[in-house]
Amino acid sequence: MVSMEKDNKKITPREVDFAKWYTDIIKAAKLADYSSVKGCIVIEPNGYAIWEKMQSILDQEFKKLGHVNCQMPLLIPENLLNKEKELVNGFSPEVAWVTSGGNKELEEKLCIRPTSETLFCDYYQQHVKSYRDLPMLYNQWCNVLRWEKETRPFLRSREFLWQEGHTIHETKQEAEEETLNMIDVYHRFHNDVLLIPSIKGKKTEKEKFSGAEYTLTNEALMYNGITLQSGTSHYFGQRFSKAYNVKFTNRENKEEYAYQTSWGTTTRMIGALIMVHSDNYGLVLPPKIAPKQVVIVPIGNSDEITSLTEKYKEELEKAHIDTYIDNSNKSPGFKFAEAEVNGIPIRIEVGKRDLDAGKIVLVRRDTREKIEESLDINIVDCVSKLLKQIGEDMYQRALKRRNELTYVAHNLTEMENILNTQPGFIHAMWCGKDECEEKIKNIKGCKSRCILEDGEKIDDKCVCCGEKAQYHVIWGIQY
Amino acid sequence: MVSMEKDNKKITPREVDFAKWYTDIIKAAKLADYSSVKGCIVIEPNGYAIWEKMQSILDQEFKKLGHVNCQMPLLIPENLLNKEKELVNGFSPEVAWVTSGGNKELEEKLCIRPTSETLFCDYYQQHVKSYRDLPMLYNQWCNVLRWEKETRPFLRSREFLWQEGHTIHETKQEAEEETLNMIDVYHRFHNDVLLIPSIKGKKTEKEKFSGAEYTLTNEALMYNGITLQSGTSHYFGQRFSKAYNVKFTNRENKEEYAYQTSWGTTTRMIGALIMVHSDNYGLVLPPKIAPKQVVIVPIGNSDEITSLTEKYKEELEKAHIDTYIDNSNKSPGFKFAEAEVNGIPIRIEVGKRDLDAGKIVLVRRDTREKIEESLDINIVDCVSKLLKQIGEDMYQRALKRRNELTYVAHNLTEMENILNTQPGFIHAMWCGKDECEEKIKNIKGCKSRCILEDGEKIDDKCVCCGEKAQYHVIWGIQY
Repeated sequence: MVSMEKDNKKITPREVDFAKWYTDIIKAAKLADYSSVKGCIVIEPNGYAIWEKMQSILDQEFKKLGHVNCQMPLLIPENLLNKEKELVNGFSPEVAWVTSGGNKELEEKLCIRPTSETLFCDYYQQHVKSYRDLPMLYNQWCNVLRWEKETRPFLRSREFLWQEGHTIHETKQEAEEETLNMIDVYHRFHNDVLLIPSIKGKKTEKEKFSGAEYTLTNEALMYNGITLQSGTSHYFGQRFSKAYNVKFTNRENKEEYAYQTSWGTTTRMIGALIMVHSDNYGLVLPPKIAPKQVVIVPIGNSDEITSLTEKYKEELEKAHIDTYIDNSNKSPGFKFAEAEVNGIPIRIEVGKRDLDAGKIVLVRRDTREKIEESLDINIVDCVSKLLKQIGEDMYQRALKRRNELTYVAHNLTEMENILNTQPGFIHAMWCGKDECEEKIKNIKGCKSRCILEDGEKIDDKCVCCGEKAQYHVIWGIQY
Repeated sequence: MVSMEKDNKKITPREVDFAKWYTDIIKAAKLADYSSVKGCIVIEPNGYAIWEKMQSILDQEFKKLGHVNCQMPLLIPENLLNKEKELVNGFSPEVAWVTSGGNKELEEKLCIRPTSETLFCDYYQQHVKSYRDLPMLYNQWCNVLRWEKETRPFLRSREFLWQEGHTIHETKQEAEEETLNMIDVYHRFHNDVLLIPSIKGKKTEKEKFSGAEYTLTNEALMYNGITLQSGTSHYFGQRFSKAYNVKFTNRENKEEYAYQTSWGTTTRMIGALIMVHSDNYGLVLPPKIAPKQVVIVPIGNSDEITSLTEKYKEELEKAHIDTYIDNSNKSPGFKFAEAEVNGIPIRIEVGKRDLDAGKIVLVRRDTREKIEESLDINIVDCVSKLLKQIGEDMYQRALKRRNELTYVAHNLTEMENILNTQPGFIHAMWCGKDECEEKIKNIKGCKSRCILEDGEKIDDKCVCCGEKAQYHVIWGIQY
């Protein structure tokens, strides 16, 4: 146990310095590292394995709803990007430009995609003829680049990985349904798989995606009370299809512009996982997203130990529980520490002393609780139940934390007090005016997170100006 | 059947114009399309689904051998790239440069990765301390960019998708074993999954990857006798680790440079699939790589037809055979044509007339043969056997074609005759001198494909200069 303590000393306690704790976890669990390319990270195998799990689960959900994957080019010609002014205005401060290729200056510079609306529109414009071709439900998994000034691993880096869904539809209603369905997919994924209790709603005009008619968002709260946008789904109406001439012949045999959506989630979700669930001993991973769910650590060396660990592994793998045996040359203490730092949900210890006493030991990563079980237990039942329990408990703990950090404010003084003491989700009514939103933003950069669609009326007056309130809004400081 | 004929008319016959046939297939099967970005393609859903299948099968093979996935940055700072002269010389004519970002000129320009040796070395250099950290067996799936002048969908485009494995090892022997193992993985994948009979060997000094000590290659022959490099595996020795200072403390407690490999395959393989197996009716896909293996086409509409098609689908899916029912509003003829153009290996037709006669019809895509089966057949057994048979027959046909286009040449006149008549794989002995290789290249650009490791001695003299032969080499014109 000595080396475990030693190892965990590398992690700055969460209470001491949250930002340092966050980067220490990333380093200790080998999720990512800084690279020689300013503002870009290397996603290391432990981090990438989490992303692969996220991809596989989300991708299945997308496909169930009829979406197909494709791949658009990385580069966008300047003149194509310029066709949609709102988008250009939103992204132009953030793009990187390729100006030479093959030892020649380019005639037209190319930007590295910050997002791919333009390319999808360009494609759709050439391929959609009739309402019979609709809907087109495309998605791509790729890298994008945004020239951020301040970066932080996973949360904000110049290059990041994401998926971007882009769909076009025959009717407004169908496109709006798609927008709603996709934010639901993200919401369920966060709540059920990542075990991050999150809230969905609509962005204000100020906070919506440039070019969208409206943006639906899924918002999560980190352990330190800072909010994180966690999946967005945009309804574009016909704005892009008019700019890019995406027309089809409708059922009345008339030309009509297509109705469009886009939606995305990114490697940011790895950052959210850390900031919601992890502790001072390292990463804590939800069972459904953990690349390895169980580690078996043999303590000592005997035929009995070897055959039992192998039997367990085989049975667990057969039940689709990702399991590995740590047969490395390291000491048991080191192996425990490593499994703990890496967030493996369950550790099974198989040692001679316990075997002689007819038992094995299971250790939960989330609570670090040791559970003794009799040797003749059904290991699959036992582990399955425990994984389920861990999942439920992790969600409940995250929910409890979120609820503790969820407030109601009726005026600016209350809001300021909360933001100066311990920030979190602040429920407050809003009149709908930009200037009030702007004024609130002056308090520690607090922004509207989302408008609750069927939000309870918690006051008659706007939290800022005191005039007639229109919307129940959640506010918070964001990453 | 009328519309099928109509549809297939879009495809230029292979015998008339092979290049046109190739691009017609890509268009008709909706695999890819040109984009507004010069030299870059859009990989459409039908094409991307094939890539996803390739990824999933190869990725499993990599992981079985202990490799892990990660993600390096897209961009490489100029000064980092410049550390390895051979690599720079090889790639500098082909790279694209980012010179501004966030509305500012960059202090140091960044190139878009043409390959990632430099970034992996930079990472390894920081993370390897001791022989205990070795081997590090990393792979990444990503996009790369090479500023090609002439492009052709899948075969050569400026941006393409690939996987690049980069590994470092404690000993020369271990790294060389890795190099060999990985070319074997590619070879097996081509032969067993893509059903492309291919040949592995070593590249000559002239044709090896810049910076490698040697390159192993897997070479395939297309239907028209043009060869295609299909997977390469490079042994770097300590060249890169010296340039990038990748050192570790060895078992004798001394500092030593690590031994390195890299290996890759790309979306080119989709091009190879087309050019080996497809015909004048469209795409023909090997059963193991086909995203959908079976299409069920109901002919007419009745409860009996519906329940039978659903029963079949359910049973086939349960047996992990990817199946879909084409319930669209199109005519049966159109559905047949679409399934044929898209290369679905088996089509099952379920219609009233056949049902009344107690039978169903299965159609093989590869031979277009119709097979009548009794209604009470075990559909899973029947389809599984047929898929297996299709796979075997496709491989045998491809092998027969390759053997027909495989020649032996003993002198330049013979070589020229072959290349002027019907090119293919040419076996010929070589003295080992650059100038002979260069001379042969003057005949229609014919290049050495690979040196056969245990190649039979088919002549005493070099095919070019007539002096003492050293190597049994395969030659050919390449894509």
